[in-house]
Formats: sequence, C-alpha cells, structure tokens
Amino acid sequence: MLLKTRKTTTQAKGRRFAIVASKYNGRYVNSMLKAARETLHQSGASEVLVVRVPGAFEIPVMVAELAGRKKNELSAIICLGVIIRGETTHAQHIAEAVTSALVHLQVEYRIPVVHEVLLLENAAQARARCLDAERNRGFEAATTAIEMAKVMGSLRKISP
Amino acid sequence: MLLKTRKTTTQAKGRRFAIVASKYNGRYVNSMLKAARETLHQSGASEVLVVRVPGAFEIPVMVAELAGRKKNELSAIICLGVIIRGETTHAQHIAEAVTSALVHLQVEYRIPVVHEVLLLENAAQARARCLDAERNRGFEAATTAIEMAKVMGSLRKISP
Amino acid sequence: MLLKTRKTTTQAKGRRFAIVASKYNGRYVNSMLKAARETLHQSGASEVLVVRVPGAFEIPVMVAELAGRKKNELSAIICLGVIIRGETTHAQHIAEAVTSALVHLQVEYRIPVVHEVLLLENAAQARARCLDAERNRGFEAATTAIEMAKVMGSLRKISP
Amino acid sequence: MLLKTRKTTTQAKGRRFAIVASKYNGRYVNSMLKAARETLHQSGASEVLVVRVPGAFEIPVMVAELAGRKKNELSAIICLGVIIRGETTHAQHIAEAVTSALVHLQVEYRIPVVHEVLLLENAAQARARCLDAERNRGFEAATTAIEMAKVMGSLRKISP
Amino acid sequence: MLLKTRKTTTQAKGRRFAIVASKYNGRYVNSMLKAARETLHQSGASEVLVVRVPGAFEIPVMVAELAGRKKNELSAIICLGVIIRGETTHAQHIAEAVTSALVHLQVEYRIPVVHEVLLLENAAQARARCLDAERNRGFEAATTAIEMAKVMGSLRKISP
Repeated sequence: MLLKTRKTTTQAKGRRFAIVASKYNGRYVNSMLKAARETLHQSGASEVLVVRVPGAFEIPVMVAELAGRKKNELSAIICLGVIIRGETTHAQHIAEAVTSALVHLQVEYRIPVVHEVLLLENAAQARARCLDAERNRGFEAATTAIEMAKVMGSLRKISP
Repeated sequence: MLLKTRKTTTQAKGRRFAIVASKYNGRYVNSMLKAARETLHQSGASEVLVVRVPGAFEIPVMVAELAGRKKNELSAIICLGVIIRGETTHAQHIAEAVTSALVHLQVEYRIPVVHEVLLLENAAQARARCLDAERNRGFEAATTAIEMAKVMGSLRKISP
Repeated sequence: MLLKTRKTTTQAKGRRFAIVASKYNGRYVNSMLKAARETLHQSGASEVLVVRVPGAFEIPVMVAELAGRKKNELSAIICLGVIIRGETTHAQHIAEAVTSALVHLQVEYRIPVVHEVLLLENAAQARARCLDAERNRGFEAATTAIEMAKVMGSLRKISP
Repeated sequence: MLLKTRKTTTQAKGRRFAIVASKYNGRYVNSMLKAARETLHQSGASEVLVVRVPGAFEIPVMVAELAGRKKNELSAIICLGVIIRGETTHAQHIAEAVTSALVHLQVEYRIPVVHEVLLLENAAQARARCLDAERNRGFEAATTAIEMAKVMGSLRKISP
Repeated sequence: MLLKTRKTTTQAKGRRFAIVASKYNGRYVNSMLKAARETLHQSGASEVLVVRVPGAFEIPVMVAELAGRKKNELSAIICLGVIIRGETTHAQHIAEAVTSALVHLQVEYRIPVVHEVLLLENAAQARARCLDAERNRGFEAATTAIEMAKVMGSLRKISP
C-alpha cells in the first residue's frame, strides 16, 4: 500500500478532519486525496469527512460551510485541487482568488485550512506533485493538518 | 436543439437557480445563457431567474442583492460574462476584482456562485468557449451549479 | 450641445444619482463629468449630486460616505477619474486598490457603483475615452447607472 | 523657509490632522513630513499629531488605531513612507498590501486617508518626489488632506 | 553570543511578545528566530511566546488565534518564515496572500504584526537575510516589534 513505509504518528488520535477536493483533473486530485485520507487514518483520526466539489473555485464556499457548521468538531480542513494553466489568464485569477479566500477563511474562523490547490503549468508538474509516491502533496497536506491541529490544541489547553 | 444530445440529469428537480449575465459582448454571453438555462430546465429546475446587467463589473452587486434577498430559495447563482482585453489594463483589473468579489460573496453568504465571467484575449477565444456546441461554458456553468446544489443539500441534510 | 443626437431615455425619471469625480487630469475628467451629468438629466433624473475629490485614491471614501448616508435615496453612484501611468508602479497599485474597493463597496451596500476610474498609458488614450464626442465614457457611465437603477428597482418591486 | 512662496489657504482652520510617517529611508520621509506639517499649520490647522513607525508595513495598524480612537476629532490621516525596491519582490508585496489596507481603512472608518507611501525604483526617484522644493509630495499630501476635510465637512453639513 | 555587540535597549521591559515561526526552510527561520528571541529578552521582555507552524500559509491562522485570545497581553506578534520560489507560481500566491492577511489582521485587531515572511529567489538570498550576523532579519523584526509596542503604548496613554 502506498503509504506503508512512511513515517506516521498517532498524533491525530481521536481528531476529526474534513477534506474538500475538486473533481476537475481528477486523476491527480484523487491521488492526493487517497494519500491524505490514508495518512489521517493511519495517524489515528477518528473521522475524515470528504466532500467533492466540481472545480477549484467551488472549494472556498464548501470550506466556509464546513467551518461555519462544524468549527468545534473539526481540527482542520484540507483543500485539494489541481488547476492547469490554459491559454487565458482565467486559471491565474481563480488560483489567486482561491488562495486569498482560504487564508481569510482560516483567519475568520480560526481553524487551520491546508492549501493544496495547485496552479500548475503542465501535466508533468501535476505528475511530480500528485502521482509520485514519495512526494505526494496529499501526504504533506495531511501531516500539516495533523501538526496544526496539535499546535492549536496545545495553545487552547494552556489558555482556554 | 442545442443541448438535446448532452447528458442531463434530474438532479436539479424542484430547485431554483439565478443567472446573472452581462450584456456587453452579448453574442457570446447570450449563447452561454441559452445553454445554461436549457441545461437547468432539462435537469428539472423549478425556476431559473435571469437578471441582465450592463457589464462584468455590475455582476457582483446583483449577486449580493440576490444572495441577500433570496439566499434560502436559491440553490446557486451562475455568473456569465465576457470581457475582451483591450489596449489598457482596465479589463485585467475588472476581471481580478470581479473574481475576488465572487469568491468572497459565496463565502460570506454560503451559497454556490458559479464563475463564468471570462477574461479573453480575442474573439476566437470567445467563439471557442461560448459558441461551440460541444464546449459551451454555459453548459459547464449549469452542471457545476446543479452539482454544488446537490452537495450542499446533502451536507445540510446530515448536519442541519 | 454635446449629447443632443444621442439616444436617451426617460428611464431615470424621478431617480437620484451621485457622481464622485476626481480633479486630477481635470480636462479629461471634466469632459466625462459633463457627459454623464447631461445624460442623467436628459433621461429624467430628478437630482444629480456631484462631489469632486482630489485624486482617484480619494474616490472610495466618498463613495462609502454617500452609500452610508444616502443609500435609500440614491439609485447609483458613478465614479469618474483618470490615472495616467507614470514612471513608478504607484498608479498601478492605486488603480487596483480603487477597483477592489469599488467592487466591495457595491457588494457591501448593495448599491450600483459605476467604475470609470481609468488607468491609462498616455494622453492619447485619455483623449479617445474622454474627449471623443461619440465614445465618451461619461455617457457610458450614465447609461450603465440608469440601467442598473432600473434592474435593481424591478427586482426590489417583485420581491421586496 | 521651504514653503514660503507656495499658495496656502486658511481652509484647514481649526481642523485636526494626523500624520503617520515611517522612519525607514528617513531622509526622504522626513522631508515630506516637514512639508506636510508646515502646509497644515500654515493653512490654519489647530493640531497636527505626528506618529512615527519603523517601516511602511507598520503604517496601517497605526492608521487603524488613530481612526478607531480619534475618528470624530481628526479631519484626515496622512500616510508618508518611502519603499525602495530591492532584489526580491518583498517591497512589491508590502506596497500592494499597504495600498489595499489604506483604501479599505478609509472606506471602513469613512475618514480620508491620504496615501503617500511610495514604492520607488531608486534614490533618484526618491529625491525627485521628496527633496525637490517644488514638487514635494508632502505638500501634495497636505493639500489633499485639507481639501478632503473640506469636502467631507460640507457634505456632512448639508445631510447630517 | 550572536547579538552581544548589538545595540539593545530596555524598551521592552515588562512587555510580552509572541513569535509565530514556520518550520519549512528551518535552517534560515531558526536563525531569525534565535536572533529575534535574544533581542526581545535582552531588551527586557518579560515573556516571549514562540509558536511553530509547518509553513508560511499556516502563519496567519495562528496570528489570528493569538490576537483573538491574547490581544490585551501581547504588545506585538512577530511572524518569521522563508519561502523560496519554486518552478510554479504557488510560492508567489502564498506570499501575496500571507502579506495581505497579516496587514488586515493588524488592522482588525489593532495589534502590531511584524512581517518577516520572506519570499526569496534562492538560498543565497536566504543566507544573506537570515544567517548573516550583522543583518539578520530576526533582529530587525524584534526591534520593529519593540518600537511599535512603545509607540502604541504612548498613544494609548495620552488618549485611553
């Protein structure tokens, strides 16, 4: 299995996470999603809620919905998407707006939002970031979420 | 008829949608509008409210008005527009500001806002995205709206 | 008189509008202002409040002030300004920030804000957009404002 | 004295202003500060509160603090700073974020915020804008502040 | 010891500070962190709370959490991070969004947020800014925080 040999932890024990993943460029996103989900489960997460949306631009509204409804249950929200630059600047504007929305959402709701919505130049870049067993960004996203959950938890324990 | 052979669904059954479409570059926008509207109706939408505004910059205020007044009735708001880059950077600034406003509107009102306000380089790009029967972005916009309506609906059912 | 032969309407009948116009590059802005004002009056506007501010960066605060104080009286706010790119990137930053502020203001106050604060490369571009009798952007701004006032009014009538 | 021969007014009579000026690139900022302060006093300002902060990025928080505490006393807040582009894009990001913050602050607090935080390419540009007796941007900033104070005051008088 | 010969002050006496530092590119960030921490302690700070987060994108949510919980205790929050531009534009978008978030956080919470989240082109730039004993940006960040704490304190004393 993909992540068998990776260093995992039990630091996510009992925690709940959500993953919002777009469907567009599904081959790449699915691979990140699989790695992220496995990493969370292997680290002891008690629940991983996965929500699929059509494209990258649909990710922020779902993060807002989840943060608004489940802020106290969720330790972090992971966002996975792949945008490949086309012949117009549309992809660039989408990527900038999504990045801006995700940073403001985590600030507004004070919940960690992990940003792996990738704007890439071509399929080779997507393969290297999403299909490579060693450097899969889904794994990186999950470990970031776990680590943020832990840091936030510690901080809230010492000063509730 | 244009969309006869397309795969449609009944997933929009009973749902209401709004489309905010600009009039500028009307030939292209009208074609997207027709495809979006037909797709929604063929998928069972009970209502499709269409509002026309002069240009792309006028789209966000109308989305805000609709989201503010009809948030509980509407399943999603579709935005359609075509901006063709001119000799100044005005189009670029408009496109960036509109994209930013639409992402923040859907986050603020927690209603899906589908963004097909296209910044294009020339008429050929507009034809390929708006007049081509197979790849009409209005169709894509409608299917995105239907899918988001469904995902949002499911999420709200399991955790009201 | 400048706009005699233009197609005007009576659609602004009884409506009130505000115009916020900067003084910098006054020759161009004054010409747009004249066209916008005449168009509004010829279309039946009952009041056109004109406020002059020093430069483009001063426009948004005045729009906020007007929207905050007179939101229920005004049908739309028109912004007119001309920024000519200099040897630094200052003009670019100003133009981007003003565009962003204007789109967010219309969304926040739900009042149409027409954006004709132009970032131009040189005087020739300014002449073509502001001094040309046929394509004066002040005329365009006024017709956009009138049209938005009408659309907003209709929408509010059917669902108050 | 520097501004002796300039055209000044008594339009600032009895008004209070604040100036937030960064210390970085002090030679240029100090010269703008001197010109702005003298212009305000010569125009009859009853108080000019000057606050120095380390760099440009520190300006917005001080403007927020002043706007929040002294909104009803102050007629306008002037921001003075000089950023000289280095070998990274850091200066560019700072300049864009500061411009965006200042436009949103004046909109949120409805107080004029004059923006003379300059992103410059080199020392020659700084000299021309800050040390030149005729075109000192500090003078320009002060006259903009005075004019905005007057316009805002008039508007509030006719519709309190 | 690194900062022995630097000019320090006792201006931070009795004050509390927080540092949010990312772990990515740890060698550079750790060196800035060491310099910032030492400077604060040598200047008399009574407490320096250090929170480590995975990457630059995780910094704003932690600043929001600290500002929200400890605004009245903390004199300033220092942010330290190093982003090295890769082959995609991801780093650029992250840097812009983080800069925007940090400026808006300090404005919203009215607490000084020192921004040393550096977007760099290569390792040489990182060495020069983070490992050089004379120009370590961590030292600069600490002195900026101390100075802002002092200015804010004075302002609040004269007009509480």
